[in-house]
Amino acid sequence: MTEARIQAGAPAQGIHGAGGGTQVLDPTYEGDFVLDEHLLLESGRTLAGVTLHYAVYGRLNAARDNAVLVCHALSGSALVGSWWPEIFAPGAVLSLEHDFVICINLLGSCYGSTGPGSVDPETGQAYGPDFPLVSIRDNVRAQARLLDSLGVHRLRLVLGGSIGGMQALDWTILYPERVERAAIIAAAPVSAMGLALNHLQRRAIENDPEWEGGRYLPQRPPRRGLALARQIGMISYKSAALLEERFGRNPNRNGENPWGLDDQGGGLIGGRFDVAGYLDHQGQRFIDRFDANAYLAILRMMDTWDPLRGYSSASEAFSRIRAQLTFVGISSDWLFPPETVRRFADTIGAAGVRADYREMASDHGHDAFLAEQVELVRLLQ
Amino acid sequence: MTEARIQAGAPAQGIHGAGGGTQVLDPTYEGDFVLDEHLLLESGRTLAGVTLHYAVYGRLNAARDNAVLVCHALSGSALVGSWWPEIFAPGAVLSLEHDFVICINLLGSCYGSTGPGSVDPETGQAYGPDFPLVSIRDNVRAQARLLDSLGVHRLRLVLGGSIGGMQALDWTILYPERVERAAIIAAAPVSAMGLALNHLQRRAIENDPEWEGGRYLPQRPPRRGLALARQIGMISYKSAALLEERFGRNPNRNGENPWGLDDQGGGLIGGRFDVAGYLDHQGQRFIDRFDANAYLAILRMMDTWDPLRGYSSASEAFSRIRAQLTFVGISSDWLFPPETVRRFADTIGAAGVRADYREMASDHGHDAFLAEQVELVRLLQ
Repeated sequence: MTEARIQAGAPAQGIHGAGGGTQVLDPTYEGDFVLDEHLLLESGRTLAGVTLHYAVYGRLNAARDNAVLVCHALSGSALVGSWWPEIFAPGAVLSLEHDFVICINLLGSCYGSTGPGSVDPETGQAYGPDFPLVSIRDNVRAQARLLDSLGVHRLRLVLGGSIGGMQALDWTILYPERVERAAIIAAAPVSAMGLALNHLQRRAIENDPEWEGGRYLPQRPPRRGLALARQIGMISYKSAALLEERFGRNPNRNGENPWGLDDQGGGLIGGRFDVAGYLDHQGQRFIDRFDANAYLAILRMMDTWDPLRGYSSASEAFSRIRAQLTFVGISSDWLFPPETVRRFADTIGAAGVRADYREMASDHGHDAFLAEQVELVRLLQ
Repeated sequence: MTEARIQAGAPAQGIHGAGGGTQVLDPTYEGDFVLDEHLLLESGRTLAGVTLHYAVYGRLNAARDNAVLVCHALSGSALVGSWWPEIFAPGAVLSLEHDFVICINLLGSCYGSTGPGSVDPETGQAYGPDFPLVSIRDNVRAQARLLDSLGVHRLRLVLGGSIGGMQALDWTILYPERVERAAIIAAAPVSAMGLALNHLQRRAIENDPEWEGGRYLPQRPPRRGLALARQIGMISYKSAALLEERFGRNPNRNGENPWGLDDQGGGLIGGRFDVAGYLDHQGQRFIDRFDANAYLAILRMMDTWDPLRGYSSASEAFSRIRAQLTFVGISSDWLFPPETVRRFADTIGAAGVRADYREMASDHGHDAFLAEQVELVRLLQ
């Protein structure tokens, strides 16, 4: 199917949830790929019976030179046509007519690929907290096996934002001969502030007694902890300017009074401001669609990403790259600040890689790569 | 006592805890003032048997024109000589020889003034969650009664950072004839991002089942929730640049391995990075010195601060001011960004008030008014 289907208000699958009313695309095929052998992980552990859930859009041409891999971010899914539809708009970055677009759910996630909620074939029980660290690099290696099975040896483009950008770069280092171009959007090794924010999200989940050390039952997940983690994440995805413009110091739109007394007449909590109502709403939406252990697994995958790990120098790692790289920073992103992305691109360029840097002017913050797709497309064209 | 006593490593009482090894000063007097009638609050409720815990440094002179009020921030105390000692250094802002310095613990706090942990004389029980909203303005009105009792009618200076700055400004609006100068440091009405951060801190405490709706026993407080709240606060008090410089992506200095497996062999949590170890340490330190309900009371005091509340316009409120105001923004403060403080100063200046703005160049973030006192003193001189 190569035509867009309008699904106003369809549930967003993006990292942070895009607005409703966006055109979303149905995949040509959506299914599972099961690795026929154990996946050897960077940690030294192996993962058995690995399933990758993936979606493809368009068809691989006879020359097999039209394949594109899109890598998703923290809470995304394989359904890139649902969370990044504007990338497929006529004349945009990808074409359903000319490209064969693959998107693969991350290992560790809860949208079809093997993750903490999956059954460990060796125990017959869900992994839960026993799920190993599956790194970005581990993911890329598994993805390569899936592409092999699809007959895709070479990618004309690999791209992604945030954790998706980390995967894209690792593709160019691990499989230099397989990637022609890569677009790495709002990504760099996680800064100390990013590590701090992720740590707080981890603590929010761990603090929830329903988490049970990761051994919660699916019907009794740590909802409050995951909701708070998501809210902490949300503030890092948005700029202060955007929150100010949207919410300011307005009382919650449902009529709560921040200056009033609590229901019981006390005053420790009080009526919410609008931004608090918004964050609570985002937290509630998220717990209906995501799993706490999967969230922890991916936070850690993000934290531990270091493209230099195992190489003796930046030059040794980055000089492997053959692809042409485009880095995109977002002007108001404080999770991956544009100057950090630019410096990262410069470091890679210094290793002799063709790497250009472009900046997206947006007050949306990190989320802009999902929230302002039309602007992003303009920049990538 | 007018001489400094060196207490290397004495426990810091500042809003966010200063480093050890600072000279701290003993007060001339530290004690309680009990209001002889109920305090009528902005909310319409009254608070009975109100106690203000306070400290004074130096002596009131015969002309009674050497009084200075220092207002403390979220988790500060009346012991300004302990948390802001450099302000008293020879030739700095305040002089133990020439000034009579008063500092009063906030109502709602847990350092001696009436707060949620105090006994409600009308029930004989601790207030707990029944403690009413006590606003910044309510605090200032109570403080004025205490100054009356000390024979202080006029302040040559009132100053404070963060919530302390909010009190300082309210002093100039509520008691225009009583204040000669005010220094308002790193303060403005809380932005949407600030409201968001405070909301997350509130949720962290509420999510802790030990909070018990605010009715926890003193020996069984919501320690994990309060520690997480503090950690969320900490990241807002520090700049990303400072965290990067201090911690970068280093593993926790105790030797944990962020790439290793968990104790049980799984990989959802992992060894901490250094910044995470630091935040956990800050959280642990805080729960030994602060109370969760007091924290909630002061968060709300901060959120609801609006110097225009009850006035028909900014002009009506600010044109009451007779004092000369100095605003200080901190270059790397993202909780109260310098441009916000500057705009706030401009707004007040536009009402005909003598208001100047100075910017402190520091990469410490909001905390700089405590962490870089020598720089602050230089700016205020």
